[in-house]
Amino acid sequence: MNPLDNIRIVLIKPLYGGNLGSICRAMMNMGISDLALVNPNPAMDWDQAERMAMHSKSILAERKQFSTAAEAVADCGLVAATSARTGFYRDHSISPREAAPRLLQAANTRPAALMFGPEDKGMDNDDLSLATHIVRIPSTDEYSSLNLAQAVMVCCYETYLASEEFEPAEERYPQAASELRERMFAMWRAALLDVDFMPPEKADHMMMGLRRIFSRGPLTTADIKILMGMARQTQWAANQSQNDQD
Amino acid sequence: MNPLDNIRIVLIKPLYGGNLGSICRAMMNMGISDLALVNPNPAMDWDQAERMAMHSKSILAERKQFSTAAEAVADCGLVAATSARTGFYRDHSISPREAAPRLLQAANTRPAALMFGPEDKGMDNDDLSLATHIVRIPSTDEYSSLNLAQAVMVCCYETYLASEEFEPAEERYPQAASELRERMFAMWRAALLDVDFMPPEKADHMMMGLRRIFSRGPLTTADIKILMGMARQTQWAANQSQNDQD
Repeated sequence: MNPLDNIRIVLIKPLYGGNLGSICRAMMNMGISDLALVNPNPAMDWDQAERMAMHSKSILAERKQFSTAAEAVADCGLVAATSARTGFYRDHSISPREAAPRLLQAANTRPAALMFGPEDKGMDNDDLSLATHIVRIPSTDEYSSLNLAQAVMVCCYETYLASEEFEPAEERYPQAASELRERMFAMWRAALLDVDFMPPEKADHMMMGLRRIFSRGPLTTADIKILMGMARQTQWAANQSQNDQD
Repeated sequence: MNPLDNIRIVLIKPLYGGNLGSICRAMMNMGISDLALVNPNPAMDWDQAERMAMHSKSILAERKQFSTAAEAVADCGLVAATSARTGFYRDHSISPREAAPRLLQAANTRPAALMFGPEDKGMDNDDLSLATHIVRIPSTDEYSSLNLAQAVMVCCYETYLASEEFEPAEERYPQAASELRERMFAMWRAALLDVDFMPPEKADHMMMGLRRIFSRGPLTTADIKILMGMARQTQWAANQSQNDQD
């Protein structure tokens, strides 16, 4: 089983449809689908939630609803609560990056919850007491309170990354071998001499500069072929104009 | 100079006020303040932007506006463009976590830009060609397109974390010393014998279970004092009821 399927996002008394929809989208972006709402705003703008959910409307449609946070997490092992405030029982907070592997490990055997309080005042102490872990998202002292949907995104993003489900695109071509690279530099050397970019006695020095520029990052075989084509054509054009002048 | 002050968020043709305001808030949460807009939507809902910006209205008010992306990044060294699409020139993308230290290093000497395309269609190839780095935010294949404000948050969050400006709350009290922990266990042993929780011959075995439970994480001196108080009071109550029965 994929532990991401066992991560539950619990929103306590969410107020705004825009946030709710953005949260569904963030969840689907990050491979999480279990959404529980505790006492959502009776005046919730469900149409706006659908609009902001975009292609993640299925998560909104399949949400569960509960009247207390205790019921929403009743079957969960690890329960992480996010809190921006500090104080007694909130001191021992961990970051989303620290929480993510613990959440995933716990989610191997039972549902694990990430709880978020209402937009306007955060989580109350009764709900916070359900938590086994308090998560604080790093932020500046100037403005420590994140928008609810942004807070959910940061936690889902860290959890998704920790799951190692994402495979970054690999370079399509491996780094070129030294022998090919040297042939390319030899072609440029010849071309730059033919266009009179440098006199022969300065060629070694100038080529060191060019080598430095072309060695800031790995060059693939495809990159080398582009650079060889440029050198070849440059040399051809130089020789053409030489012929015209003769 | 704090390199975060040299990070510029560049939004190309942003459409929606809600996203714009959320972006200002995300920036202030993460210690970034330089916002540049390229051809914002003429029908932009500036009132909604102000509402969503909450306490970060100063960033919205101090935004710069440009008519081309080239002008918006003209003074920037490193220029990172975010892109969800893959393809030629987009293959060699790096993650926000890889990009963050490079952005900060570049920002030590010149402004460094994080560019984001419009909500509806992403960045066009002309604007993308300005980039020295392509950033792809990890996401599922099922739904790889993030909401614009969420994409900005993920990039700002990674950059802020990499800046090491954030100091996590330290534990207020250090882990208690073994000697104090042993006194606490001795008090519980006495109390649990007095309340007849365990017969003397099982005491060693039961106390091993209790030690395991209390050793899942570090106990601070304050934790130990709470546990000692409970043991002392338990023993006192047991002896009271013993005296009543005598």
